[in-house]
Amino acid sequence: MSESDEKVSAKDTEEVIMEATFRALSKHGYSELRMRDIGEEMELTRQVIHYHFDGKYDLMASFLEYIIDQYEGSVEVDGDADPRTELDARIDQCLFGPEFEEFSHWDRMKVYHELYTFAQNDETHREIFNDHYERIRGSIVEVVEEGMEQGTFREVDAERMGQLVTDIIHAARGRRMALGHEEAPEQARQSIDEFILDSLTLDEE
Amino acid sequence: MSESDEKVSAKDTEEVIMEATFRALSKHGYSELRMRDIGEEMELTRQVIHYHFDGKYDLMASFLEYIIDQYEGSVEVDGDADPRTELDARIDQCLFGPEFEEFSHWDRMKVYHELYTFAQNDETHREIFNDHYERIRGSIVEVVEEGMEQGTFREVDAERMGQLVTDIIHAARGRRMALGHEEAPEQARQSIDEFILDSLTLDEE
Repeated sequence: MSESDEKVSAKDTEEVIMEATFRALSKHGYSELRMRDIGEEMELTRQVIHYHFDGKYDLMASFLEYIIDQYEGSVEVDGDADPRTELDARIDQCLFGPEFEEFSHWDRMKVYHELYTFAQNDETHREIFNDHYERIRGSIVEVVEEGMEQGTFREVDAERMGQLVTDIIHAARGRRMALGHEEAPEQARQSIDEFILDSLTLDEE
Repeated sequence: MSESDEKVSAKDTEEVIMEATFRALSKHGYSELRMRDIGEEMELTRQVIHYHFDGKYDLMASFLEYIIDQYEGSVEVDGDADPRTELDARIDQCLFGPEFEEFSHWDRMKVYHELYTFAQNDETHREIFNDHYERIRGSIVEVVEEGMEQGTFREVDAERMGQLVTDIIHAARGRRMALGHEEAPEQARQSIDEFILDSLTLDEE
């Protein structure tokens, strides 16, 4: 290890590796990615990666959590907002994402969706995705239940509605990336309003 | 090429290669798949694959069309059925799939969804998926329009509803496979009924 490597703390090192992983993934895609591609994207020696991570899968699990943390950490909804406004904000966040400096929401979601598809072969990834799915769904269920308690939403199966909305968001993001339908998130947003939320809101009936 | 290889017609050969591809994919997954893995799953020599296909991507494009043809060829809806019954049958077909002898609907969908995720890097695959997406969506739009013409469905944006239902189906299949939610297709079916189709059908309001 060179002297410059030693100056970097463990936390910084992991971030350097994560950012290098992002650049390597953007170039090579997940299935073609090799540890040495990541090494080529950073100034530290490749041995640092092997020191911190036990192979590609281990690194990818950490990388997935890194993306999710950034994505979730940025949700901001005014606590005083009425349930419908809050629901709209949460759905928008999932569909259109927060803004980032280097890689965009879609760069991040591209990796997310690739790893999602492979989660069936990887118990650790599957667990991370399941946790994330539950948090997204839960955050929608919570607001729907709040609205029902306040009497602004009609009585529905909140769990099922949260699940449906989460599925629609996921499909629209996937369709934008896989099929190149740039307008998919906007279409999903309109469909959720027109077919699901408008009939939920009692005031608007 | 051995004598036995020559006896097989081009069409049969392609089917043999497709079935071998299925077996190889089930074992290795898409990202790890190598042409030689397919060769190991068939009795013909590996050169036959190279003779028929110009590399892995070309073979995968044909394989994708092979899966879609089998899947679509099996949709059977009674011509006299009312729009709601027809809509239900088409949605069920997409969600639960037809029955196959060797590989199940889910084995087929696993490959379909893996390739779908990679379609962003592959123009040929993207085109095949876009065509398929349009056919599925179109088949739903068609029945919704039929129901509106007959006066059994309320007036809606049929295009958008077709798209929404197609997205929900896709997400539920993906969730079953990626996250292991065995119940996802059944949940999607119930959500489509409860939140979308029941309010579409005027008789039931």
